[in-house]
Amino acid sequence: MKVYSGLAGIPVVKSSISYIDGERGILEYRGIPIQELVEHSDFLETAYLLVFGKLPAKEEYTRFVSDVKENQYLDMSVLNFLKELPKTTHPMKVLQSVIPVLSAYDKNTDVLDPQHHYSSLVKMLGQVPVITALWKRISVGENIVEPDSSLSYSENFLYMITGRRPDPVEGRVFDRCLILHAEHTMNASTFTAVVAVSTLADFYSAVSSAVGSLSGRLHGGANEKVYQMLSKIDSPEKIPAFIDRMLQNKKRIMGFGHRVYKTYDPRAKLLKKMLTEISSLKGGSRLIKTAEVFEKEALKRLESKKIYPNIDFYSGVLYSILGIPSRFYTSVFAMARIAGWVAHCKEYVKENKLFRPTQVYDGGHNIHYVPPEKRG
Amino acid sequence: MKVYSGLAGIPVVKSSISYIDGERGILEYRGIPIQELVEHSDFLETAYLLVFGKLPAKEEYTRFVSDVKENQYLDMSVLNFLKELPKTTHPMKVLQSVIPVLSAYDKNTDVLDPQHHYSSLVKMLGQVPVITALWKRISVGENIVEPDSSLSYSENFLYMITGRRPDPVEGRVFDRCLILHAEHTMNASTFTAVVAVSTLADFYSAVSSAVGSLSGRLHGGANEKVYQMLSKIDSPEKIPAFIDRMLQNKKRIMGFGHRVYKTYDPRAKLLKKMLTEISSLKGGSRLIKTAEVFEKEALKRLESKKIYPNIDFYSGVLYSILGIPSRFYTSVFAMARIAGWVAHCKEYVKENKLFRPTQVYDGGHNIHYVPPEKRG
Repeated sequence: MKVYSGLAGIPVVKSSISYIDGERGILEYRGIPIQELVEHSDFLETAYLLVFGKLPAKEEYTRFVSDVKENQYLDMSVLNFLKELPKTTHPMKVLQSVIPVLSAYDKNTDVLDPQHHYSSLVKMLGQVPVITALWKRISVGENIVEPDSSLSYSENFLYMITGRRPDPVEGRVFDRCLILHAEHTMNASTFTAVVAVSTLADFYSAVSSAVGSLSGRLHGGANEKVYQMLSKIDSPEKIPAFIDRMLQNKKRIMGFGHRVYKTYDPRAKLLKKMLTEISSLKGGSRLIKTAEVFEKEALKRLESKKIYPNIDFYSGVLYSILGIPSRFYTSVFAMARIAGWVAHCKEYVKENKLFRPTQVYDGGHNIHYVPPEKRG
Repeated sequence: MKVYSGLAGIPVVKSSISYIDGERGILEYRGIPIQELVEHSDFLETAYLLVFGKLPAKEEYTRFVSDVKENQYLDMSVLNFLKELPKTTHPMKVLQSVIPVLSAYDKNTDVLDPQHHYSSLVKMLGQVPVITALWKRISVGENIVEPDSSLSYSENFLYMITGRRPDPVEGRVFDRCLILHAEHTMNASTFTAVVAVSTLADFYSAVSSAVGSLSGRLHGGANEKVYQMLSKIDSPEKIPAFIDRMLQNKKRIMGFGHRVYKTYDPRAKLLKKMLTEISSLKGGSRLIKTAEVFEKEALKRLESKKIYPNIDFYSGVLYSILGIPSRFYTSVFAMARIAGWVAHCKEYVKENKLFRPTQVYDGGHNIHYVPPEKRG
């Protein structure tokens, strides 16, 4: 009997949240091309669009932003918990751990009541970036920075994690990064969220489960590795030989290639543009230069195989310029993807069906218990 | 295009961990019938069998038990965390939350190194019951009970949660309950663990994700509901009318029927026997009497439809007699199922394949962004 390994090509949901055309390099959220959202929208508006299926009316947007901002203040017990954790705890473990207990502060967690979905969403959007930023500061022994509600959502995160008020261009660039990471159809972490919510577990449990999946190095974490690779290259002249060596050894070039996109990843294209923007502000950096040369040299060798830079190629470089430590890159991914995870959970429970696949058994039968003294 | 709703009938793994024959009422762990394990084995030995595929040699067993017991002492920061949590936090949220941070106390968490699997297993088997028991005591404001290493694994849990040293019969009955809940092929929580580990997330993250799924009321939690139903019935004479009313209203009888078993659930049969055992010790109780009459009356009406009592029908009754509060029943399920989850994770990563199913998109395309002032 056939085993559907990794469920490749098996549709598990009907969904109207996002769409990818990998041949033409198209990504749409609720039918709107990602380029238009990056140009005109902001992350919170995009999160609202993904979850509720429409762009918010003006009053809806104002209320949504204010509800998210109200949730930027942590309960003391969550803060004390962060202080208790071993400083070596990985930021993704911190998120997976804190998110389920946030439900204790929310009276509206029945997933079958659509009225309850809003409060889970605004609480997670409010708290997760704050927890991430605080964990950075606590784990390296820095002073805690309080949220500043006069800043935008994205500016506030950069302020809290770096301790420095960001330039508006930095805030805007980071906000666009969040838009680009907010949703991407049915991947392993989104699938995990959907399987968990199918048991009618609440959104906090489902999102925490998804964070668990995203923490795996085959899923999140690629941008951290791209950054590590690029930051180790001390001179652009060494790049061609470096790439040739990797290809000869049949090593995968981190940040290149994608299961779905067989052309330039539209998100990578937008990130590259933002990098130029920030580079003109910051006067360029060795890392940006390295990334540009790396891309050119890699494309020379890989474009004929339809292997192009993906979203992870430029995001790490951008985050490093914004002052985010590489250990936190996957957490930033999670912060943004909360929108997509909640959107899929909300969509799935509407016509909920418990996931209960089967297995092919290939072991023995009717084996007898052997007492300890008779074991080999 | 077809959507495989809930993946019913779709094999997602090849597995040699457990086997169910629903027509004949057979459940085997690694080929050994569950009846033999309940009679001759204990929970820790069964956990070893499930995870490592063979009954441990005598020295292996001794070392395993001692390693688990060494892990029964919590780090102070975990204890302080429990003290910080809002007292209303559900015990399943506490487990989902604490398990990921246990990885910070383990240097061997690389899932691709089989040598690392052992330490995740003994840490979780050691800590999860202790965390559960402590959370019961902390959440109701009782004094904390320290582990007593002179007690068996199962006795120690009962001691720590109730504060009373259990009778050996109680310890043995509870241990058998753990054996019966340790594994059950590919259900929603086990599937969640496997999806998470397929990203190469560590076993702590995968098990925490599985706890998230188990917390949903369609998965774990049924025994709690059976208990609530039975404890509300104040006189056995009222049972026939109660059942008739439920059937007329097309309500599901909690604790009856199973997706796989079309005969008496072998686990329910064993639990029923244990109930008789404990009843002769404790002199019977109104709840046991109610359960017995309920079963007889329900079977009269349902047996022709091949609907029989399942594992949840008797486990809640047993737990209540052992002094475990109903709010903790699903956590007891999780404590036992750690064995099965870890076994499946270990088996899956051996020939790992990232889960990446697809979706059928049913939304619009090329919709334009509408500026706020022009929205309806």
